[in-house]
Amino acid sequence: MARPDDRAADQLRTVRIQRDWLDHAEGSVLVEFGATRVLCAASVQDSVPRWRRDSGLGWVTAEYAMLPRATHTRSDREAVKGRLGGRTQEISRLIGRSIRACVDFKALGENTVQLDCDVLQADGGTRTAAITGAYVALADAVSWMRERGLLKGDPLVTSVAAVSVGVIDGEPRLDLEYTEDVRAETDMNVVCTGDGRFVEVQGTAEGKPFDRAELDALLDLAAGGCAELTRIQAEALGR
Amino acid sequence: MARPDDRAADQLRTVRIQRDWLDHAEGSVLVEFGATRVLCAASVQDSVPRWRRDSGLGWVTAEYAMLPRATHTRSDREAVKGRLGGRTQEISRLIGRSIRACVDFKALGENTVQLDCDVLQADGGTRTAAITGAYVALADAVSWMRERGLLKGDPLVTSVAAVSVGVIDGEPRLDLEYTEDVRAETDMNVVCTGDGRFVEVQGTAEGKPFDRAELDALLDLAAGGCAELTRIQAEALGR
Amino acid sequence: MARPDDRAADQLRTVRIQRDWLDHAEGSVLVEFGATRVLCAASVQDSVPRWRRDSGLGWVTAEYAMLPRATHTRSDREAVKGRLGGRTQEISRLIGRSIRACVDFKALGENTVQLDCDVLQADGGTRTAAITGAYVALADAVSWMRERGLLKGDPLVTSVAAVSVGVIDGEPRLDLEYTEDVRAETDMNVVCTGDGRFVEVQGTAEGKPFDRAELDALLDLAAGGCAELTRIQAEALGR
Amino acid sequence: MARPDDRAADQLRTVRIQRDWLDHAEGSVLVEFGATRVLCAASVQDSVPRWRRDSGLGWVTAEYAMLPRATHTRSDREAVKGRLGGRTQEISRLIGRSIRACVDFKALGENTVQLDCDVLQADGGTRTAAITGAYVALADAVSWMRERGLLKGDPLVTSVAAVSVGVIDGEPRLDLEYTEDVRAETDMNVVCTGDGRFVEVQGTAEGKPFDRAELDALLDLAAGGCAELTRIQAEALGR
Amino acid sequence: MARPDDRAADQLRTVRIQRDWLDHAEGSVLVEFGATRVLCAASVQDSVPRWRRDSGLGWVTAEYAMLPRATHTRSDREAVKGRLGGRTQEISRLIGRSIRACVDFKALGENTVQLDCDVLQADGGTRTAAITGAYVALADAVSWMRERGLLKGDPLVTSVAAVSVGVIDGEPRLDLEYTEDVRAETDMNVVCTGDGRFVEVQGTAEGKPFDRAELDALLDLAAGGCAELTRIQAEALGR
Amino acid sequence: MARPDDRAADQLRTVRIQRDWLDHAEGSVLVEFGATRVLCAASVQDSVPRWRRDSGLGWVTAEYAMLPRATHTRSDREAVKGRLGGRTQEISRLIGRSIRACVDFKALGENTVQLDCDVLQADGGTRTAAITGAYVALADAVSWMRERGLLKGDPLVTSVAAVSVGVIDGEPRLDLEYTEDVRAETDMNVVCTGDGRFVEVQGTAEGKPFDRAELDALLDLAAGGCAELTRIQAEALGR
Repeated sequence: MARPDDRAADQLRTVRIQRDWLDHAEGSVLVEFGATRVLCAASVQDSVPRWRRDSGLGWVTAEYAMLPRATHTRSDREAVKGRLGGRTQEISRLIGRSIRACVDFKALGENTVQLDCDVLQADGGTRTAAITGAYVALADAVSWMRERGLLKGDPLVTSVAAVSVGVIDGEPRLDLEYTEDVRAETDMNVVCTGDGRFVEVQGTAEGKPFDRAELDALLDLAAGGCAELTRIQAEALGR
Repeated sequence: MARPDDRAADQLRTVRIQRDWLDHAEGSVLVEFGATRVLCAASVQDSVPRWRRDSGLGWVTAEYAMLPRATHTRSDREAVKGRLGGRTQEISRLIGRSIRACVDFKALGENTVQLDCDVLQADGGTRTAAITGAYVALADAVSWMRERGLLKGDPLVTSVAAVSVGVIDGEPRLDLEYTEDVRAETDMNVVCTGDGRFVEVQGTAEGKPFDRAELDALLDLAAGGCAELTRIQAEALGR
Repeated sequence: MARPDDRAADQLRTVRIQRDWLDHAEGSVLVEFGATRVLCAASVQDSVPRWRRDSGLGWVTAEYAMLPRATHTRSDREAVKGRLGGRTQEISRLIGRSIRACVDFKALGENTVQLDCDVLQADGGTRTAAITGAYVALADAVSWMRERGLLKGDPLVTSVAAVSVGVIDGEPRLDLEYTEDVRAETDMNVVCTGDGRFVEVQGTAEGKPFDRAELDALLDLAAGGCAELTRIQAEALGR
Repeated sequence: MARPDDRAADQLRTVRIQRDWLDHAEGSVLVEFGATRVLCAASVQDSVPRWRRDSGLGWVTAEYAMLPRATHTRSDREAVKGRLGGRTQEISRLIGRSIRACVDFKALGENTVQLDCDVLQADGGTRTAAITGAYVALADAVSWMRERGLLKGDPLVTSVAAVSVGVIDGEPRLDLEYTEDVRAETDMNVVCTGDGRFVEVQGTAEGKPFDRAELDALLDLAAGGCAELTRIQAEALGR
Repeated sequence: MARPDDRAADQLRTVRIQRDWLDHAEGSVLVEFGATRVLCAASVQDSVPRWRRDSGLGWVTAEYAMLPRATHTRSDREAVKGRLGGRTQEISRLIGRSIRACVDFKALGENTVQLDCDVLQADGGTRTAAITGAYVALADAVSWMRERGLLKGDPLVTSVAAVSVGVIDGEPRLDLEYTEDVRAETDMNVVCTGDGRFVEVQGTAEGKPFDRAELDALLDLAAGGCAELTRIQAEALGR
Repeated sequence: MARPDDRAADQLRTVRIQRDWLDHAEGSVLVEFGATRVLCAASVQDSVPRWRRDSGLGWVTAEYAMLPRATHTRSDREAVKGRLGGRTQEISRLIGRSIRACVDFKALGENTVQLDCDVLQADGGTRTAAITGAYVALADAVSWMRERGLLKGDPLVTSVAAVSVGVIDGEPRLDLEYTEDVRAETDMNVVCTGDGRFVEVQGTAEGKPFDRAELDALLDLAAGGCAELTRIQAEALGR
């Protein structure tokens, strides 16, 4: 069965990265994976959380959220409900961990970069688009800091990109959109560094458990997708 | 003293209204008043709140929020703090009341339109941009409902637009941007219908109390600004 | 149509101001606008909020609340619900802003006056009664501070009073009670200084939008009401 | 050592009960134990909580709260903090349990009486004043219901009153005011029915544990105080 | 009528105290009163709450909670509901007050002992088991501190134990289990020191008010039960 | 370098499963992985969540929590803080998803099994112990339901077990305890069905990114560990 947009099984959606989408943020990116659209803002602060003070080390953290009408049907605001949902916190933690994997905190000095990833429109893969865009926003914030002499070295030891993969009707596919996501038997999010190593592998059997062969096929697919995203990030950054 | 962008005292910033900015919402608008950028989404629901059931009447409500890095320095998320701030609730209530002033709830039938106004970037006048954009998003949602035969008549009895005015160094000015807003002695937000009547007048002495002459001058300025915004709304809607 | 208590359209309800209603507070007033009864307590603290420290300036802030059975039918407590309602926060902010308009913060020194306005019984105009009473409680707290040599000068540059006005059956009326309030086509709250200038003007079209002539009539009526309240405040303070 | 107001050790403070202090509530009482002043409102609702439906039985419940400046120094509002304190909930539960001890729920029918006890001024004994006043407010609400034919019988099987007792410098004293309360070695609150039996006995060693003889002396004192309060309640109710 | 387990009216259930149930806590006890099973952990911290600093005095505090399936039917978690129930806070406060009655805070030095009492299984008397077990956990934590030279003297001036008593079918009974508890006409929790004096007496008429004779009988029964528990505590501690 | 307890790299800690640890729960297990100790309770309810009603399908859900002194230093209670932490919610969601992978919801009928996993003592691997124990508790609850004729078939299509693996000093190790966990360069939790397929694979680079060879080694180790746990579960269940 063909994919909704006639993509090949190992093909990404059209990925678009617009830098400097905001005037105030030290780094900001509107990243699109097809119809998924995430605004990533990097905010620099010349201090670190209390538990990190006087360590000489910086910090990077992330928060993820969705606008209420990013989705097909409207969701209630978490601010109105007065509590963060489990999914929101889980993805915020994932983004923070993933991005920290490419940072040398000594080189960053005692500064914090806060990454805000707000999903303006959701069509599957919001967390992977957020990680991919947040890296670029971070790179711009790092440049901003470098120009102002705020760094102790180069804090970006590598780059980080992420993609989702899944099995649909027995076929492994790259970068699922929403209509594929809901049908997937297995769903996996993979975060890789620019040199092809793994930062996070999160695979979940949605429909039925998967065997080692399926897992291997998904990992291959994801590694290829991350390599392509690494190239697109570099291009967006003019490297 | 000249205005930051050499505008005349009675001149609006460049106003830009992009319709259909989202794929899923029944109406959606990205509205810009200069650098202020608000995403307004209208969501249609075929039911009404409990207290309104079996009345034959519809309902329109609004929620306003700001992304954390919409502003010059980052603000904490209200969802993370676990409570809505007073300013957020006050503006949400204002938008809801203002938009309801142009609606015939009998013609709307027992449907609810939820208006979400999310500030992506803030440079003064976010609440007035939100009201002006939300009306257009509502108009699109109403068209969507009309095409599906969900209405009992024409629910839009007029249009609604809003603008801020303020006194700076003794001079009344239209549509303040952020650097003006913080210096204003008096700050007023005015909401008008398309036929030039008032829906809301909210004037606040920031620096020193104002007399009746100043109040009159501000009301004149605001009425003119709302008339111009009404024209821009009509143009955006292709009327 | 006559008013419920045969008042003239431009006549206040019976206003009663009892000072020193509490033993502990530095200033306290039980203010009544007809059956509306608000307890206003002023608490002096010899410090200021963190963001104001070492500025040499004082601060005045206010909180408004209603007892659950102040109203015709009981309302749930916000403390039990675990969150402040939007209306409560909006009115608290209004009272704070209004009262601050009469204060010289340099003369106040680095002290804070907290104004608590608790509605014991509600019959329309609770926020305007609260502002009118809070000013008197503040004046008593200022006297208390003066006697103890805590001030740097006279912090009260003027007085502040507030009244509601509205249009009912096309007729502008002063100081609406509850049964009028629910029928009003337009509802406006006006805060004036003792010398007749405006601090806040908040007009809302409840039923239908209002034109400039109606707005002007309401402003005239409100200015007269505030002048009368200013006289009653002065009398209560024995000036 | 003499008591602050030269009272005898077994003497109540001046107790004052003003009925019908509010216009809207079905029963309302301003009760004063000396400078302690509590507003008790009884609200009648023609339904019962979900877990009580179709049982043929009514319900009585209570909520206790303190205005922020009821006390010598201002306390933060629990609604602002977003959570009820342990002390507040404990006293609310005590009042509810105590009052329910005098109610025949079958005779009440499937109606709920909600008792709101708001402390306007605190000088020790706020919970005992609240119970004593709440009973009178309940009695008035019951009369209101009787006049409207809402009852199945007489729901008040007895009356309920409460008083505090304590040991100060080894001397048992009745109805402690605040300056005594903070010095008490043992503190006890006792709730009695009109016929002299016990509903609640809550004794706490504040300074040092107490023996059986002290406990007996306190119980005697409290029983006498409750008997006197029962007489004052009856007088206030014109019985 | 016989008791569910054929106990005598003045007989405790089988009480079992297992020390060192946890590896990390400075003191820990699994206490059982029949099927009631409470895990008491004492945590030592070398500081005191802010309001106690530089006083030279230590502090002891307690928190009580129940696992969701400790009870016959599952209860929702308070952490999930986002608020502590009134009962939970009331019992936490009772445990803290009770245990503090046996502590010399000067001898404790500026250290805090936090007592966590988590009910793993509930069958009546959870608060009294918690107090009885918490004392033993505290004693072990005090030994731990003594070995490390953290004390200024002997902080345990006496021991503390607690038991419930109640009237069932007119008969006073000691240490009620759940099926008795729900049928009790009067329910009382009594906390005594090791030398037989009272720390807390909390009696509540569940079904009908009680007279002085019943109260006296319950106090006698409770005092005997506490004496037996004091013996069991001493035995567990190898004294 | 040897492991803390001289285990082989591919060896589990001593695993102990005690069934029926609670009297009331339909299934309950105290599971120990070395010093890690988790109480798993399964509660049966004869209904399903609202969104699942009239589907003919059952539901299984899980909640994970830690007692405050389960850990080396005490953690604050989430119920006291008034909000669930991100880690708690993430693990609760993981347990729920994992256990649901072995359930046929049609055979379960419109019943819900709620799994409560409370960590009494933590020494690494609490989430994997919780999943392993929760399966056994669920199996007992299913037997309980079968005996009462509440099922439509056999709801357990397979079993589920989980284990952690990690890389320490370059060596892949099975079932990390706490002191290993904090030193691991890579940390992975793997959930397998009884027939050796994968339900969840969650690998995280803690120190440095991992390559495919390391990932493969960890997956082999985990699959072996899960097979051994499957055997232990079957033994505990007397199969």
